[in-house]
Amino acid sequence: MIGVFDSGVGGLSILKYITKELPDYKYVYLADNARNPYGNHSQETVVKYTRQAVNYLFDRGVKLIIVACYSASSLALRTIQDEMLVKKNVKDRKILGVLRPVAEEAAKLTKNKRVGVIATRATTGSKAFETEIAKLDKGIRVFVKSCPLLVPLIEEQWGDKPETRKIAKAYLREMKSFNVDNLILGCTHYPLIQKTISQIMGKKVNVPNIGEIVAKSLKDYLGRHPEIEKSLSKGGAGNTALSNVEFLNTDKIPEFCQLGSKFLGHPITNIKKIDLSEY
Amino acid sequence: MIGVFDSGVGGLSILKYITKELPDYKYVYLADNARNPYGNHSQETVVKYTRQAVNYLFDRGVKLIIVACYSASSLALRTIQDEMLVKKNVKDRKILGVLRPVAEEAAKLTKNKRVGVIATRATTGSKAFETEIAKLDKGIRVFVKSCPLLVPLIEEQWGDKPETRKIAKAYLREMKSFNVDNLILGCTHYPLIQKTISQIMGKKVNVPNIGEIVAKSLKDYLGRHPEIEKSLSKGGAGNTALSNVEFLNTDKIPEFCQLGSKFLGHPITNIKKIDLSEY
Repeated sequence: MIGVFDSGVGGLSILKYITKELPDYKYVYLADNARNPYGNHSQETVVKYTRQAVNYLFDRGVKLIIVACYSASSLALRTIQDEMLVKKNVKDRKILGVLRPVAEEAAKLTKNKRVGVIATRATTGSKAFETEIAKLDKGIRVFVKSCPLLVPLIEEQWGDKPETRKIAKAYLREMKSFNVDNLILGCTHYPLIQKTISQIMGKKVNVPNIGEIVAKSLKDYLGRHPEIEKSLSKGGAGNTALSNVEFLNTDKIPEFCQLGSKFLGHPITNIKKIDLSEY
Repeated sequence: MIGVFDSGVGGLSILKYITKELPDYKYVYLADNARNPYGNHSQETVVKYTRQAVNYLFDRGVKLIIVACYSASSLALRTIQDEMLVKKNVKDRKILGVLRPVAEEAAKLTKNKRVGVIATRATTGSKAFETEIAKLDKGIRVFVKSCPLLVPLIEEQWGDKPETRKIAKAYLREMKSFNVDNLILGCTHYPLIQKTISQIMGKKVNVPNIGEIVAKSLKDYLGRHPEIEKSLSKGGAGNTALSNVEFLNTDKIPEFCQLGSKFLGHPITNIKKIDLSEY
């Protein structure tokens, strides 16, 4: 199975595109909504929570985990990969983040070498995007801005309301003056107000589709790593992409399903609550 | 010692008045900011987290705990009191919430017997205010409204901005039509925008000071329970109220101190990070 992990519903905006691009595999989506949002927690806390989620998924037999949460990808991925795979010389399991493929795409797309990133405070504070993009091209200038209110506004389904547009405008005011040609949505909630953000930034600024980038990058990865690809189980004939997904969360199933279906664009059933704090 | 527990900084708006009213005692303030906010979590999760906090404080020798968090008071207090005190026949330790004193005051203050409550989703969903007020006077009609965006707006220090006023106005639109004469701020964050809320509700609606009510109620309680009062340690001579407070939290000390000082109206020092998940 492929495991997709997020602190809450946000990663469903990534899962949507992964299951579209790679409909044959079996998936398990894990949301730690008893302790979310992660975006304002410390590195130590995010590492601890991510470690528990990864332990759980490996215990369940998952071979490949996508950490579909920028806060966890920025603050915890490297540490977790080191301690759980590199140091133990584990080769048949993999943990991938969402940051690198998005950074690669941005480096490819930018013409004026000025890239903007909006994200949670955890992600901007980690400087993960600056580091990742600098590895690809030191000449690219990266401008980051944390937009902590956008997650609650989107979760409360105020995304379409004028107050959200005004708050987004206030967050993006300085960004507009930086003359970036690409703006990365560095939080899995933001694609739900992609249109509003695009309108505020204006026609000259490209806002790439994060879900498509991550899905394509995963497809490429599986093509380059047949040893991993072969170990993944596939759904039976006649299964649609989303009927191959098992959902797990850590709190409040009905609310998760109601909000999550908006991120996924599809109803969520087949869900079970688990406790991560023991892992 | 008196323990004051909250999921985050909110309870400091209560602690401020308690230490003013009762400056001689020693206090420990515990904030579970690695897992906050509690306001959108389920009852099961809030009970679990509150149990761990109460266990920790009792282990530390605290004799009297104020659960200065409406979400925890509404969803967890009764269960925790039952399992940790009543069932074990413990008489020398006490756990008090903030809901009952506030409900009592509202029942006393209302003349037209129409009381409004704004709170988090956890608190409104629990129907705790309706239950508590009905115990005092079945003739009082209680109108509740959850305002989930106010906590993040206040925590992000957008409380004074026009967007917050607009969102508060939208939340209170229906409440204004209910002709309540008292509006309870059923979340410890809301006192930070008390002025805005009062202005929106208009001059005919009284918005009681929650911190004062809880502090006076605690003073009364100690007067009525000398056996508890005697067991509480006091600060040395010359100590000011806030120099008698030890602060504990579960994540990100600098951010907690910076935001918390606004709730407390005083700088926060003497703080230590602890781990509640083992309790």
